[in-house]
Amino acid sequence: MTSGDVRPRPDLARLDHDRARRTGEPEVVYGEHKSPTTVATLLGELVAGGSVPVLATRCSPGHAAAYPAGEYDPVARVLVARVADPDPGPGTVVVACAGTSDLPVAAEAVAVLRAFGIAVDLLADVGVAGVHRVLAETDRLAAASVCVVVAGMEAALPTVVAGLVACPVVGVPTSVGYGAAFDGLAALLGMLNSCAPGISVVNIDSGFGAAMVARRILLAGRR
Amino acid sequence: MTSGDVRPRPDLARLDHDRARRTGEPEVVYGEHKSPTTVATLLGELVAGGSVPVLATRCSPGHAAAYPAGEYDPVARVLVARVADPDPGPGTVVVACAGTSDLPVAAEAVAVLRAFGIAVDLLADVGVAGVHRVLAETDRLAAASVCVVVAGMEAALPTVVAGLVACPVVGVPTSVGYGAAFDGLAALLGMLNSCAPGISVVNIDSGFGAAMVARRILLAGRR
Amino acid sequence: MTSGDVRPRPDLARLDHDRARRTGEPEVVYGEHKSPTTVATLLGELVAGGSVPVLATRCSPGHAAAYPAGEYDPVARVLVARVADPDPGPGTVVVACAGTSDLPVAAEAVAVLRAFGIAVDLLADVGVAGVHRVLAETDRLAAASVCVVVAGMEAALPTVVAGLVACPVVGVPTSVGYGAAFDGLAALLGMLNSCAPGISVVNIDSGFGAAMVARRILLAGRR
Amino acid sequence: MTSGDVRPRPDLARLDHDRARRTGEPEVVYGEHKSPTTVATLLGELVAGGSVPVLATRCSPGHAAAYPAGEYDPVARVLVARVADPDPGPGTVVVACAGTSDLPVAAEAVAVLRAFGIAVDLLADVGVAGVHRVLAETDRLAAASVCVVVAGMEAALPTVVAGLVACPVVGVPTSVGYGAAFDGLAALLGMLNSCAPGISVVNIDSGFGAAMVARRILLAGRR
Amino acid sequence: MTSGDVRPRPDLARLDHDRARRTGEPEVVYGEHKSPTTVATLLGELVAGGSVPVLATRCSPGHAAAYPAGEYDPVARVLVARVADPDPGPGTVVVACAGTSDLPVAAEAVAVLRAFGIAVDLLADVGVAGVHRVLAETDRLAAASVCVVVAGMEAALPTVVAGLVACPVVGVPTSVGYGAAFDGLAALLGMLNSCAPGISVVNIDSGFGAAMVARRILLAGRR
Amino acid sequence: MTSGDVRPRPDLARLDHDRARRTGEPEVVYGEHKSPTTVATLLGELVAGGSVPVLATRCSPGHAAAYPAGEYDPVARVLVARVADPDPGPGTVVVACAGTSDLPVAAEAVAVLRAFGIAVDLLADVGVAGVHRVLAETDRLAAASVCVVVAGMEAALPTVVAGLVACPVVGVPTSVGYGAAFDGLAALLGMLNSCAPGISVVNIDSGFGAAMVARRILLAGRR
Amino acid sequence: MTSGDVRPRPDLARLDHDRARRTGEPEVVYGEHKSPTTVATLLGELVAGGSVPVLATRCSPGHAAAYPAGEYDPVARVLVARVADPDPGPGTVVVACAGTSDLPVAAEAVAVLRAFGIAVDLLADVGVAGVHRVLAETDRLAAASVCVVVAGMEAALPTVVAGLVACPVVGVPTSVGYGAAFDGLAALLGMLNSCAPGISVVNIDSGFGAAMVARRILLAGRR
Amino acid sequence: MTSGDVRPRPDLARLDHDRARRTGEPEVVYGEHKSPTTVATLLGELVAGGSVPVLATRCSPGHAAAYPAGEYDPVARVLVARVADPDPGPGTVVVACAGTSDLPVAAEAVAVLRAFGIAVDLLADVGVAGVHRVLAETDRLAAASVCVVVAGMEAALPTVVAGLVACPVVGVPTSVGYGAAFDGLAALLGMLNSCAPGISVVNIDSGFGAAMVARRILLAGRR
Repeated sequence: MTSGDVRPRPDLARLDHDRARRTGEPEVVYGEHKSPTTVATLLGELVAGGSVPVLATRCSPGHAAAYPAGEYDPVARVLVARVADPDPGPGTVVVACAGTSDLPVAAEAVAVLRAFGIAVDLLADVGVAGVHRVLAETDRLAAASVCVVVAGMEAALPTVVAGLVACPVVGVPTSVGYGAAFDGLAALLGMLNSCAPGISVVNIDSGFGAAMVARRILLAGRR
Repeated sequence: MTSGDVRPRPDLARLDHDRARRTGEPEVVYGEHKSPTTVATLLGELVAGGSVPVLATRCSPGHAAAYPAGEYDPVARVLVARVADPDPGPGTVVVACAGTSDLPVAAEAVAVLRAFGIAVDLLADVGVAGVHRVLAETDRLAAASVCVVVAGMEAALPTVVAGLVACPVVGVPTSVGYGAAFDGLAALLGMLNSCAPGISVVNIDSGFGAAMVARRILLAGRR
Repeated sequence: MTSGDVRPRPDLARLDHDRARRTGEPEVVYGEHKSPTTVATLLGELVAGGSVPVLATRCSPGHAAAYPAGEYDPVARVLVARVADPDPGPGTVVVACAGTSDLPVAAEAVAVLRAFGIAVDLLADVGVAGVHRVLAETDRLAAASVCVVVAGMEAALPTVVAGLVACPVVGVPTSVGYGAAFDGLAALLGMLNSCAPGISVVNIDSGFGAAMVARRILLAGRR
Repeated sequence: MTSGDVRPRPDLARLDHDRARRTGEPEVVYGEHKSPTTVATLLGELVAGGSVPVLATRCSPGHAAAYPAGEYDPVARVLVARVADPDPGPGTVVVACAGTSDLPVAAEAVAVLRAFGIAVDLLADVGVAGVHRVLAETDRLAAASVCVVVAGMEAALPTVVAGLVACPVVGVPTSVGYGAAFDGLAALLGMLNSCAPGISVVNIDSGFGAAMVARRILLAGRR
Repeated sequence: MTSGDVRPRPDLARLDHDRARRTGEPEVVYGEHKSPTTVATLLGELVAGGSVPVLATRCSPGHAAAYPAGEYDPVARVLVARVADPDPGPGTVVVACAGTSDLPVAAEAVAVLRAFGIAVDLLADVGVAGVHRVLAETDRLAAASVCVVVAGMEAALPTVVAGLVACPVVGVPTSVGYGAAFDGLAALLGMLNSCAPGISVVNIDSGFGAAMVARRILLAGRR
Repeated sequence: MTSGDVRPRPDLARLDHDRARRTGEPEVVYGEHKSPTTVATLLGELVAGGSVPVLATRCSPGHAAAYPAGEYDPVARVLVARVADPDPGPGTVVVACAGTSDLPVAAEAVAVLRAFGIAVDLLADVGVAGVHRVLAETDRLAAASVCVVVAGMEAALPTVVAGLVACPVVGVPTSVGYGAAFDGLAALLGMLNSCAPGISVVNIDSGFGAAMVARRILLAGRR
Repeated sequence: MTSGDVRPRPDLARLDHDRARRTGEPEVVYGEHKSPTTVATLLGELVAGGSVPVLATRCSPGHAAAYPAGEYDPVARVLVARVADPDPGPGTVVVACAGTSDLPVAAEAVAVLRAFGIAVDLLADVGVAGVHRVLAETDRLAAASVCVVVAGMEAALPTVVAGLVACPVVGVPTSVGYGAAFDGLAALLGMLNSCAPGISVVNIDSGFGAAMVARRILLAGRR
Repeated sequence: MTSGDVRPRPDLARLDHDRARRTGEPEVVYGEHKSPTTVATLLGELVAGGSVPVLATRCSPGHAAAYPAGEYDPVARVLVARVADPDPGPGTVVVACAGTSDLPVAAEAVAVLRAFGIAVDLLADVGVAGVHRVLAETDRLAAASVCVVVAGMEAALPTVVAGLVACPVVGVPTSVGYGAAFDGLAALLGMLNSCAPGISVVNIDSGFGAAMVARRILLAGRR
């Protein structure tokens, strides 16, 4: 289904204000398959409606050009229209990724978390083929309240990290790889079968999904 | 590979005491494919070594009979040799399951969490085919610091729950079902593709895995 | 097989007039992979032959331009050359979809049903992550003789709807999603494994197929 | 997960009386993996509670022996404790199956429909390898308000039937076959890709599911 | 691997003249991924070497333009440089296809057989959704020494044909379809699981492969 | 669906005498999942009805014991009640298999062909890991009118054979193997993708299916 | 295909003495699905024929009992009838496995290598969830000429090992795990997608296959 | 994830000098999805840093144009910036491929090995459909210390080669093929299930991976 750009008619929109109140999560625009104009309009409506934060994921430079008031991260492909105030509570999210090819997914998680005002520490290029690189960062990992670990190919990094820290590890398999990587299936299965306890997994390439899980975990401790 | 019962020779055992110290998680015995004698011996060694708690999962009544000092939950198939002191901190884990067939997996999560001293509230039989049953429990769900949601077949329950609560939701797909359920694959894919943010997923039928993630989440908030 | 445009030679065409008489369904042109000229020619032949209704699915604006006498719905991608008289019997089809990305598939079902003269009520944006949105439409759902429910990703909507209504529910999985959605496989498996009775399923993205099933169901009651 | 027999504790049961009122469908017991005692107890409770009809599917002779007041169909593996009054309305369901190996699934559909008081006509052994057998039954097929078509292996029968009748066709793929039948996957994919309009599909081997869809279709016409 | 155009260096070519002698099959050029120049060169070398017939499959109009001496069939995408003398023996191959979308694959089989000098009778548009269309051609089918049956989607046609004729049926699944057709997998599995004896299957979309099998079958009877 | 033994009621049987006349193939009993008594009864009815030959495949010694008048091949698991007269025409079928584990499938093909009166030459243990073993049999292979080639694991034998002979090769993938053999999937895909022309494939482990294809091929040449 | 025990007739046996001479590998008996008597007979024939070494894999205690002259390793399930002289050359194979459940596969590799006279060093229980356990064995790993690394579940161990050593790493995925391990598929894909160079992979659970690769690698250096 | 070009920020780079020292393998640039500028910069940095050899794989002519000092092989798509000194030790790697379509993958293996200074002998076009072509090269194959065997489609070549040589065989499945080749899956499964001992496998299309394994094997013999 290559739907092109579908602009729902106004009478079809139904906001679930109560849901946002219950979960603390405003609507986030998913830019893929939406036109720059549509994304810009939706961001404008959310800003006008008072949502905090306001952002769109999976945006191209073309989307960014259509909403010049926003801040665009070309690696993360995230377009932010309004940032939340910095989270006043304790706790940091460490986002770690195995290779530079996984960086866009990690960057999406970072950008989303920062838009929500949450402190993030990014550890890039700590793949397990050179396990000493991971071990060299044990202190930064141990300082995390949550670790988001992004990895493609055989996706062994979450297992190694979960053995080094006491906090929850959110694994994000990526579609990086070729051949028997099967567009992220190998990484997904690898993370689901980790021999280390404390790991849960989100959808392939879903830096956004991991960020939302990490945010809920961070806030869970304050209740 | 139906390995039967493999009793590793003593010289092959290598404890990773430092790992337990780092992660706060003692070894947990996986009873499947191990003989009652082996499970009983391992539990005895862990008790003697001072581990807290000491338990084995996937145990049959035969395993339980071989370790009469333990407490056995036949639904959860968990055999507990030593329970941790009650967790002094705030926070409750709600474990919800969709159908009675999912109950063994939910019960495994409950039994493991209780062995670690963590307060659990079990909500059974709240499948979404009668969504009013879920909605009727909104208050108990909203009181959770973490929700473990266990579901087979189409596994829609985590999505509905994640729209009702602000805390993290850990989904456990189960192999309950037949035909196109493909031994839990349908439930797994359903949870990974949830349209609700805040859900992460563990392996099929892994009540144990969900419990370990929930415990880390609960403790993460106190750091 | 990217066949491009294949124009069968005249001597290869074999109409099954008797089949149309038996099933009450005229030929419907499938526009995908056919050239605008081919689609226009086929529509013209069907109009000349007296078929009612006459329409083509999966049409681009280019197809529409080649048959200016038709009415084109760019969201549904349906091009209608002749509409049937309004169905005189009682009964309405409700077409519900979970997200705005699923709208093209839902719109295809709506456009096909309307071309056959059948009354349709479209409910868009009632995804189950905010289950109150579905519940708020219980009355419109309950008024249906058939519900066509269109959903991608985890595809939980048909299960929730089937628990709210007494009429048959036709599920249409969509290829909306990414990663472990596997081009609609997750949604398809989800619907096939629904825990709610009364649901049957058509092919991924087949708004047309669902419309034809819904039409047969609607007429079945009048025999 | 071979859960054995799980008897939920009383406090876990939550009836959804409102759902039964809305959908007109009482609870039906799924006997697989439940002990004879459990099935008998559940049937007794439903009878005492006034449900109509009361039945259990996927029952062995052992289940039947534990509830001697019921009527047991050993081919369908259905155990009926209370039958509904005969449906007073017009309309018949034709259940057709391709081979004798598919008969248990067809018989399950028949037994469930009869328990609900619905008139059924069973056409067995009309596989398409000898297509004249199907054509010889055109009149009985054409008399149906709904056709339930049960087929394994390549599952071509629903396509042929849907070209002969004007009513909806509910396809039930079966796990009959070996090798590349992949436990019903081939039949499932075959039915989903039928070139004939008017077919929708339920889960593999789900005679029960098809019966419930057929019942809703039959009643839909009377609204 | 999108290899682009790979022109092997001369020293890498190793002809297996003995194999052609043993099997009676000259080299046939596979045009996909080869440049027009490469295809033209290879055809020229084979013509110069005395091969009979000389042809290339999967050719675009661009390939045809680069070898103007050849005869190009744009539907079959076959470019023929030299035709074999007409087969003097008895026997005809019937090539039947279900829908017009399957015609390119059927046409490839026809073009290859004709290049080898074999008599072919093409039956197009005899899909089983209107089974009377197949039955109306029983005489032409019964006259075949081999039937090549081409079908996508649910691929039921070979089963129906094999029940009508006594000769071998070679099934060619096509990638025609969408959604759960999975690029021809559904059709392939359908044909492999046919309930009719006498069917064997070649690779998806392989009109060429079916032609070569049909040719061997035709010649087998003369030994 | 483990259907156990299903004995269809008499009124459900519908013979397709015309089909047997058209195709020259009598009914063959498939013994799997049928009781010894059922198989014996069916064989008796076919013998009484004058069918030639009369046989059942996938039979255990228990089936054979229930029909002592038959001839039972325990490797092939075929039980023959009546043999056809020897085929008077020219032509031999060579059945070749790669390893001794593939022998039961090859033996099934041999037993079925012999029951139909067809001359067979069995070549066992000619796997391609020692390709000289295949080459040493070139003369016997070249004498075949049809080759049935049975192979599991990587299933390379049909490709090698098809390069040595001019007759059609019918490949039978077997479920022999473990791990990534995936119950015959690897062998099936291997045969479908053979680089040698002239190979077509039947279902996994279907020695019977290959025999029926080989018989049709053998007879095709005499028309 | 559960073939039971197939004893090939004498005339079917064809030894490929030349192959053994070329590759240096005698026949090794695969015990699975063979009766104790068959295995014992085959071992006896190989001993009589002068093969060195003589052994059978996948043997049960029952097989061992039928050949009391052999030496049986119940963990490896290998039955050795004759051992080769110790390999006089330099070089050691390190066999490492991640968990005790992987030990049978590792033990099969060890037993086969020792039967061929090759020096082996077994490192058990060095899973990467506690990566310090692997690092603690760096010296023993670095002393290897070849490393065979056996791992199930997410199978991260080969990647970590390949980053620590300069020698080739042969990965053996195991079917250890449950749920999304899919009988070793997750481990297989993980190893194939390793981000560390120098790893190649054999079939799931194939300790034997890895041993034969390791032996060839060890000998390759002496040519 | 079509990541476009991601240029990691300088502070994210973390070299693992110790790993290169341990394994003897410098970083090799993977050109896919990287811009010409990025590849050129990375090559320049590695040359400046003293790495030997320095090369990038999966490079287009555009990449080559951005680094004119390098030597580019357009078939192998490898761009070499610095070559290692010729390996002084004995031993040759034979790289064999089945068809000309497999040549790019074979060429990648050859180019990488040559950049590391290793002697290579390339055997192209030795597919098993004409097995005499392989046998004619027995001497060259037997001279190898390692054989890298590249094959798509049914991938039978490694099995045949492993029966002809005593050295290790590294199989590289390719994505060459169509239909049921499933982008190299058929070839991958074929190689993993080879009935010939001594074969291990790398990822689909990974000529680079095979080269690195072959290099480690070659060096292993000198320790």
